[in-house]
Amino acid sequence: MRMFKLALCQIKGSFDKKESMATVTRYVETAAENGAQVISLPEMWNCPYSNDYFREYAEAEDGPTVKFLSDLAAKNDIYLIGGSIPELDGGKVYNTSFSFDRSGQIIGKHRKVHLFDIDVKGGIRFMESDTLTAGKDMTILDTEFGKIGVAICYDVRFPEWFRKMALAGAKLIVLPAAFNMTTGPAHWDITMRVRALDNQVYFAANSPARDENGPYVAYGNSCIASPWGDFIAHADEKESILYGDIDLDYEDSVREQLPLLKHRRPELY
Amino acid sequence: MRMFKLALCQIKGSFDKKESMATVTRYVETAAENGAQVISLPEMWNCPYSNDYFREYAEAEDGPTVKFLSDLAAKNDIYLIGGSIPELDGGKVYNTSFSFDRSGQIIGKHRKVHLFDIDVKGGIRFMESDTLTAGKDMTILDTEFGKIGVAICYDVRFPEWFRKMALAGAKLIVLPAAFNMTTGPAHWDITMRVRALDNQVYFAANSPARDENGPYVAYGNSCIASPWGDFIAHADEKESILYGDIDLDYEDSVREQLPLLKHRRPELY
Repeated sequence: MRMFKLALCQIKGSFDKKESMATVTRYVETAAENGAQVISLPEMWNCPYSNDYFREYAEAEDGPTVKFLSDLAAKNDIYLIGGSIPELDGGKVYNTSFSFDRSGQIIGKHRKVHLFDIDVKGGIRFMESDTLTAGKDMTILDTEFGKIGVAICYDVRFPEWFRKMALAGAKLIVLPAAFNMTTGPAHWDITMRVRALDNQVYFAANSPARDENGPYVAYGNSCIASPWGDFIAHADEKESILYGDIDLDYEDSVREQLPLLKHRRPELY
Repeated sequence: MRMFKLALCQIKGSFDKKESMATVTRYVETAAENGAQVISLPEMWNCPYSNDYFREYAEAEDGPTVKFLSDLAAKNDIYLIGGSIPELDGGKVYNTSFSFDRSGQIIGKHRKVHLFDIDVKGGIRFMESDTLTAGKDMTILDTEFGKIGVAICYDVRFPEWFRKMALAGAKLIVLPAAFNMTTGPAHWDITMRVRALDNQVYFAANSPARDENGPYVAYGNSCIASPWGDFIAHADEKESILYGDIDLDYEDSVREQLPLLKHRRPELY
């Protein structure tokens, strides 16, 4: 149980939930057939990534999308990190990632903690906080393979959050995320690698595939970085499944040879 | 006063302090002639980088090396971040960076806070804590250009430390540092870029030049990363002076367009 196979499904979203669900079903079944034990989906896979649609597509925890994901996990006997969907609760909309164990039970629910409000001259403008409400809780899944952290996209900009997850025992962190064509080329690769390296964890970022005609053009480039900070798998922009062997013995060995977590001086921070 | 020129002197060390001082004098004079207003030196420029030599080469704050650096700053009318030297104090040896204003007055003294103890299989083994004592204080210089943070080499492995400096107002952070031929190619570039990007500061790492015949083979590759996380200057492994224009208006503009520091949620960390 010191090694397991992770798969990231880099799929395109659509305006049609049923179509998106059919795509997800096909990709998850293929990944499971290929031996993946933990499978992840992208951010906002069942909703166009736009403030115009979040509320319209939002569902409660007892809605059809969560039921669909739960059934999918159970049917394929896998851990499923369900990307994220717009979640409606008490009149508010959250960007939420539900995770499931092999029996389809919910084992984690992450509401994006840091909302994406940016306005880069000549680049991208997006204000999630116009429509979404931020979460406040850290999400760590207890699995038979050890602890797996889950965060969403813009959360990755805040090193404090990932340090906190590593100190809470996360061995792998999975990030459903949709960077864009401004921040993607500039920041995606190095940020994912350094979160892995600093925290001596496997770090996996699951983007949607790029859709040049969609309301938001995602960067793609889903990737899995090792605790040494190199990529063990890296996608391009097209639809694909990215596989990586998560080797916890190797992680232990990196932590022993370069004992960063041990060398922290928390009394000074 | 919103723009100034930084120069990093990437020089080789030697076993002979007088020779090292002559090299430093030559490089600093050239950098100042070329308009640099803040000039930096590498880690342990006046001492072979080896536990065998730190105590032998160590000097007190009132010793000849600090006097030499002070005179050099005053003579060239520049701010000097004096790389680092082994400092002897109360029988203990520290890896210390002294900084000076244009009059030669000491305006900062950083004792490396995180000691470099690593043992990578088939790579590098080094145990600074066999001979050195760690510091505990953050170092921020008050200059006419704004606040400049100083840290040393392995300190860079700890994101907490740089967040703390950014929150204390550092606009530029200078890191005298000597990565090696294992960690250099693997981690140097991405770590420097992400410290700059996460903290929205200019981040400058000043390595010694590579000396294949020295007791420690430094990686070289001194570099200056912008608050957007790209390199504005990058050296190879040879002796050179690396120049960069530090543009605080640009830094403000990055912080406005991508307001990471504002979007932190410190109540949750």
